[in-house]
Amino acid sequence: MRKDGKRRTARRLRSKLTPPAPRPSGGGGADAQLDALNLQLPPPPQPVGVYQSLVLIGKLAYASGHGPLRLDGTLITGRVGLDLDLATGKAAARQAGLTILATLRQALGSLEKVERVIKILGMVNCTPEFQEHPQVINGCSELFAQIWGPDNGVGARSAVGMNSLPSNIAVEIEAIFLLK
Amino acid sequence: MRKDGKRRTARRLRSKLTPPAPRPSGGGGADAQLDALNLQLPPPPQPVGVYQSLVLIGKLAYASGHGPLRLDGTLITGRVGLDLDLATGKAAARQAGLTILATLRQALGSLEKVERVIKILGMVNCTPEFQEHPQVINGCSELFAQIWGPDNGVGARSAVGMNSLPSNIAVEIEAIFLLK
Amino acid sequence: MRKDGKRRTARRLRSKLTPPAPRPSGGGGADAQLDALNLQLPPPPQPVGVYQSLVLIGKLAYASGHGPLRLDGTLITGRVGLDLDLATGKAAARQAGLTILATLRQALGSLEKVERVIKILGMVNCTPEFQEHPQVINGCSELFAQIWGPDNGVGARSAVGMNSLPSNIAVEIEAIFLLK
Repeated sequence: MRKDGKRRTARRLRSKLTPPAPRPSGGGGADAQLDALNLQLPPPPQPVGVYQSLVLIGKLAYASGHGPLRLDGTLITGRVGLDLDLATGKAAARQAGLTILATLRQALGSLEKVERVIKILGMVNCTPEFQEHPQVINGCSELFAQIWGPDNGVGARSAVGMNSLPSNIAVEIEAIFLLK
Repeated sequence: MRKDGKRRTARRLRSKLTPPAPRPSGGGGADAQLDALNLQLPPPPQPVGVYQSLVLIGKLAYASGHGPLRLDGTLITGRVGLDLDLATGKAAARQAGLTILATLRQALGSLEKVERVIKILGMVNCTPEFQEHPQVINGCSELFAQIWGPDNGVGARSAVGMNSLPSNIAVEIEAIFLLK
Repeated sequence: MRKDGKRRTARRLRSKLTPPAPRPSGGGGADAQLDALNLQLPPPPQPVGVYQSLVLIGKLAYASGHGPLRLDGTLITGRVGLDLDLATGKAAARQAGLTILATLRQALGSLEKVERVIKILGMVNCTPEFQEHPQVINGCSELFAQIWGPDNGVGARSAVGMNSLPSNIAVEIEAIFLLK
């Protein structure tokens, strides 16, 4: 991916443009937040198709759609509004967020390499009658806000309802991050 | 968001790269077009979850999924093909576009800060039998073309059908813009 | 689109940052791969709404959602899991990929102008019970890997299920590419 040369240059460029990013309140950075919250990450997911989990382009990191991987490597499945209630759907979105963190940490070495969340697309496997997609996807968004703080950790977002997802996973979340 | 320093620099960089953007025909820019068309914007939407309505990254502005907010702050709801016909769905997409304009004007001060529409993702709350998503989403696309002109106002696009959307809104539209 | 000035500059900038991209193994570049695989591209699609098939922003190319256009200009339609089986759905995704290639070649002159696939969003028109979206979208992803090689041709990806798509097309795929 030749990210090193480009990332170094991007960092040099940015250092001329902007002041250093403030650290999230109450901690010593994103990795420390993960520890302080006692969070365990699932194993970084293996792609289940012809794609890469994360692609780095200059300062941008594009994360593929991630499902909710448990620590034991199994997936949270089911349809919200039918098999799963709102709280379980929200927990699944948080777990999908943890799975994205696992991918980021594997690819970048540290969550502190992320400057901010740019955007997430939160897709909920749900019934046609379901209307609380934002509350479900907050499970991921609140996690990211805990990790990177209430400004840098909170990006743009769409939260929508899908008629089906791969392997009947409860949510699939893709994201774009800005790197330092 | 530290946009000021980066945006200024982006503008300097661009001024070396490209000629000035042509103004949309028939008006004195995007804000004037809004007035000339007698368009009223709804109140800028408050996020209904843990996200920001707009995130600025260098020259790019990522707009969250926006619903069709009426001037009185209520949302246009219903499923196209069941509760709503094509014309009403298209009007909802136009209203979602106006809601995005409200977000842009609040964040940027002026719609003229937008150089062009890069891409929109138009998601229609509809029945499985519905097939006219492009005609629905044209409600937003035609508005943007009126505001920023037939070249800069027209971006890439996907228009697709969702089995459900938050609060049963008729459409949800997210967008990426290039700033001057 | 004023792409020429920006693209030239982008190329100059990149030439300072990164070594030349390696060619895909076994061929003389993307256009040669197309010939070597005996692939025929459909006619570049005409937008069926108010959008552009491809928008170029600096080094990034945003491709609109593309349907599976046959060589004769007709579309592959139907719902996977109901009207179409997995193999037919996968063939439709490959055809959508070929349609994206037709758009790229028309806009850029050559597929070799693409440095890498950044991300694709593969949307499958399918039943609520369908679970094999990744296998369907692999039809497009395997094609891109053949054209640009196993690294540059493979990007980030989401593969998801839609309750409906325009004109009942079997798949709709949008993509972001990095240009040289």
